[in-house]
Amino acid sequence: MRPAITLAGVTPAATIGIIGGGQLARMLHAASIGLGLRIRLLAEGPDVSAAQVVAQVTVGDYTDLRTVREFAAGCDVVTFDHEHVPTEILHALVADGVAVRPGPEALVHAQDKVVMRRHLSSLGVPCPAFAVVADAEELTAFGDQHGWPVIAKTSRGGYDGKGVWKLDAPAQAGTPFAGLTPGVAIIAEEFIDFSRELSALVARRPGGQSVAYPITETVQTDGICTDTVTPAPGLTPIAIRECQALAVRIAEELDVVGILAVELMQARDGSVVVNELAMRPHNTGHWTIDGAVTSQFENHLRAVADLPLGATRCRAPWSVMANVLGGSHPDLLAALDPVLAADPELRVQLYGKGVVPGRKVGHVTALGDDLETTTRRARRGADLLKGIGDE
Amino acid sequence: MRPAITLAGVTPAATIGIIGGGQLARMLHAASIGLGLRIRLLAEGPDVSAAQVVAQVTVGDYTDLRTVREFAAGCDVVTFDHEHVPTEILHALVADGVAVRPGPEALVHAQDKVVMRRHLSSLGVPCPAFAVVADAEELTAFGDQHGWPVIAKTSRGGYDGKGVWKLDAPAQAGTPFAGLTPGVAIIAEEFIDFSRELSALVARRPGGQSVAYPITETVQTDGICTDTVTPAPGLTPIAIRECQALAVRIAEELDVVGILAVELMQARDGSVVVNELAMRPHNTGHWTIDGAVTSQFENHLRAVADLPLGATRCRAPWSVMANVLGGSHPDLLAALDPVLAADPELRVQLYGKGVVPGRKVGHVTALGDDLETTTRRARRGADLLKGIGDE
Repeated sequence: MRPAITLAGVTPAATIGIIGGGQLARMLHAASIGLGLRIRLLAEGPDVSAAQVVAQVTVGDYTDLRTVREFAAGCDVVTFDHEHVPTEILHALVADGVAVRPGPEALVHAQDKVVMRRHLSSLGVPCPAFAVVADAEELTAFGDQHGWPVIAKTSRGGYDGKGVWKLDAPAQAGTPFAGLTPGVAIIAEEFIDFSRELSALVARRPGGQSVAYPITETVQTDGICTDTVTPAPGLTPIAIRECQALAVRIAEELDVVGILAVELMQARDGSVVVNELAMRPHNTGHWTIDGAVTSQFENHLRAVADLPLGATRCRAPWSVMANVLGGSHPDLLAALDPVLAADPELRVQLYGKGVVPGRKVGHVTALGDDLETTTRRARRGADLLKGIGDE
Repeated sequence: MRPAITLAGVTPAATIGIIGGGQLARMLHAASIGLGLRIRLLAEGPDVSAAQVVAQVTVGDYTDLRTVREFAAGCDVVTFDHEHVPTEILHALVADGVAVRPGPEALVHAQDKVVMRRHLSSLGVPCPAFAVVADAEELTAFGDQHGWPVIAKTSRGGYDGKGVWKLDAPAQAGTPFAGLTPGVAIIAEEFIDFSRELSALVARRPGGQSVAYPITETVQTDGICTDTVTPAPGLTPIAIRECQALAVRIAEELDVVGILAVELMQARDGSVVVNELAMRPHNTGHWTIDGAVTSQFENHLRAVADLPLGATRCRAPWSVMANVLGGSHPDLLAALDPVLAADPELRVQLYGKGVVPGRKVGHVTALGDDLETTTRRARRGADLLKGIGDE
């Protein structure tokens, strides 16, 4: 992990390799600077979000074993901006002796929903009823047994509402199988009539130390996280501890290193089931940059570098994050002026991405003592950046 | 300031050029990432503190006009990590049409103590009695008039206690003139028997908007800032407003753009006189990264990019910063482990610099409700990183 000193008077620094150059890598880089860690980036292109800000960038294809292997050779640890690196490449790195964190045996649970559902169910973790279905007929049988609607998902590759279908009746059972990528399965899940979605975020070190963040309520619109509120309003202390304990237990059972985000669906009776897992900093934890003592980005780095984890408590009674989705403003920097002028306390993160309608191009966080005011401030900041209300 | 869009779908980003690759540029880069600004760095070497983390680095000599001119051509604004760029080079950039912020007419007050003392005195700003002295005889005459000891300083180039002498008697009056660099003058100043040092930090935009930070007490050891406490204990609300108003007034009179740090000496009767000025993020403002709503680094960038300034209030009742000076630990990353383990709430900034005894290699900040505990936590963190108490 820690290289020997090779130059007199020069501080050795653990080099963290990040595969993927999106906004998560960008924000990981910002968090690395104070810790004295060095970031090496394997980026999809020379000017993607994180490549704009990182000193050591390799442009290359993360699905090419040789590229990834050469990249990893210059790193003390390899971690991820996304879950799309093929499992066989990760196993090859581990065989090479590379510290891959989270490791492939853990990461597969964030890559493959079938593996995740089977493992979590075997551990007794609350999940919706599910089955791998080969065709419309099997999907219909699942719906007839568990009731309609049925949620269908691709086993791999879905994100932000893509690769997920809500099927209301048997007539729609063929939809998920149209144009299915070879090697990808369809999983049918019981429809949970949840009242809201929660996120339980934990960070875990290789040695097993883990810390849990306060529970976040996430507001999803068309399958995309648009807002989060922390702490989740109205959650009892017992429910908070149960959600945190569940996430810590999953992190331990799956041997996760780094951040684990457990997305939960909460039913009207208060009970929760696991929806998805992510093993990297997560959109539902962006509030931690400004709202927690230690951000999820810093704790992910501390975890993968095997350093003691930082405190997770809130800095303010309420932290509300609102995603900035691409809208009518092509020039975010020009849009920044009225946003900052209107609210000198608002915290803004821009991702350096081209504005495409619906694309996540930044987020804002408001901290405050009053939930309603704090929510309004965050929403207004995001709307102004998007270009709503100024035309 | 804001370049036209040149590529469809790509967000234009104002590019801020920073001359100098020390820890201030490093921390400016961290603050730039969320704002979506791009940093270009003119660094002294390929692996200096900021060059380790910035994407666009030019290695070159900031005293060479051609180098600086070529560097500035790629930037929308040029600002500084230090005050050592020759004034004539800055004037040449301004003549080229470059936005230099702070501008040379302002910056000279942080470069040349004679210019600073004369201008501030003409404005009626409280300063010690002073005179430019050509030799030991004139210095002795100054001391005989204003009393001994006398403080002697070089007009340019001093820092961290270098280029400053406390002369107790006429017999020492020759000391400052030994080996004096040509073109550098000696300024004699009345010795102020101050009870403590304060720092008043403001940020100011080109249009004139300025914001003042809470006043900080700074603890100097052998001319080097070792600790800061914010807010300065025991300062009355009136005294706070007076110090802030003084700093805002100096920023306006001198037309500063960016951060201005006004170092003050406070006498036992509570009155203050100006000691030094700095026009860049300042060691006495490092607490703002974790302790203020908007850090001095972010507000410096907002100011030089002509964006609205952020809120300056404290996030906690007390913020104590302790500098980490190079000590017995050559490997700061290894030293980080016990520090983070001992105090999960401690905030650490390492500068990526080789450990040399006495050199500033990082700082830690503790936030808390109780001054004594908060001070002890910050001091312990810095001592552990330095290598005190673990041998």
